[in-house]
Amino acid sequence: MGLRELKRARTRRLIADTAVELFSEHGFSRTTVEQIAEAAEVGPTTLYRYFPTKEALVLEFFEDCFVDIGTWLREQPHVAVPELLRALVERVLREMEGRPDRVRVTIELAARTPSISAYLSELNNRLRNTVADELVRRLPGSDPRLTAALMAGATVSTIDVVLRFWSENPDHLRPLPLVRQAMTLLERFSAESAGCSEQRP
Amino acid sequence: MGLRELKRARTRRLIADTAVELFSEHGFSRTTVEQIAEAAEVGPTTLYRYFPTKEALVLEFFEDCFVDIGTWLREQPHVAVPELLRALVERVLREMEGRPDRVRVTIELAARTPSISAYLSELNNRLRNTVADELVRRLPGSDPRLTAALMAGATVSTIDVVLRFWSENPDHLRPLPLVRQAMTLLERFSAESAGCSEQRP
Repeated sequence: MGLRELKRARTRRLIADTAVELFSEHGFSRTTVEQIAEAAEVGPTTLYRYFPTKEALVLEFFEDCFVDIGTWLREQPHVAVPELLRALVERVLREMEGRPDRVRVTIELAARTPSISAYLSELNNRLRNTVADELVRRLPGSDPRLTAALMAGATVSTIDVVLRFWSENPDHLRPLPLVRQAMTLLERFSAESAGCSEQRP
Repeated sequence: MGLRELKRARTRRLIADTAVELFSEHGFSRTTVEQIAEAAEVGPTTLYRYFPTKEALVLEFFEDCFVDIGTWLREQPHVAVPELLRALVERVLREMEGRPDRVRVTIELAARTPSISAYLSELNNRLRNTVADELVRRLPGSDPRLTAALMAGATVSTIDVVLRFWSENPDHLRPLPLVRQAMTLLERFSAESAGCSEQRP
């Protein structure tokens, strides 16, 4: 990253951090873009250049965690697909774990505001499509599109469910141990329904 | 259902059918509530009483398929949870299969219009919560909330993925055979990653 890009990334992060603090303190609808710009010491035009909507401000951190997943997936060596997906889930949650308060506030704001919830769903849909596209390249068979879409769907759903659960139960396990528990549970559940009785607890 | 309720349900369906036809023909944003009301031969006030937003008109059929899932789940006998979830997925898709064109138009409109996509995500989230609540009642253990949420998430994701796939690939399998294939794939995938090697293809 060049110096200019680094500066841009810092400004972007500063604006989003300021915004989320204000949203958290005064409420999403009661905080204006002008107030955020003033608190972050940038002009409203600069703010709009970085974030076209208030929803994008709330989800800046999530969007950042998801943005390079496509590149990361393409760079992974040819491991088995379940291993790749597990690594992906752990990668995303490890990054999320670094900012527990931000994740919690984001999920709470999404639960209260339909437009934020909609933006979060949109991010999840995009992530699902990115993962599915990579799986199509990796899975065997002449037309693995449905398998790819289902695996991608289950993976993104796991991330989403664990983040919501963690955010609603802050004193519970942290996300990374939680997702390991989660994936073991899902694997055991599916192994059972597939008739693998030695996987029963 | 009493006579009055039956009449209400018919009017509701007629309004939604008319709306989806107009949206499909002229576009979502270019069709006004007044035009829909006129075509359905009801007053705009009546229309608003049934459907507070244009998005609700588009998703009437999906909402109808989901609305009694909670009651249905509670009425099911105490079968194993994987069996219950499979029955749920098949029940929803069987109903969806009855109106293939409507499902396709709905998914297409959602793909083009963020507010419709947001409403669909909201319906999926609600369905996930309904399923999770019932699974909490049925699963063993002192705190099965995470397991319940993960299973509910995977189930709703399966429905969503299959409907999208079917809608984008109309000449492919129909949803019910598709979901059977889907669940077998998911079970095999998870059985494999759980080390059940006899489930390999």
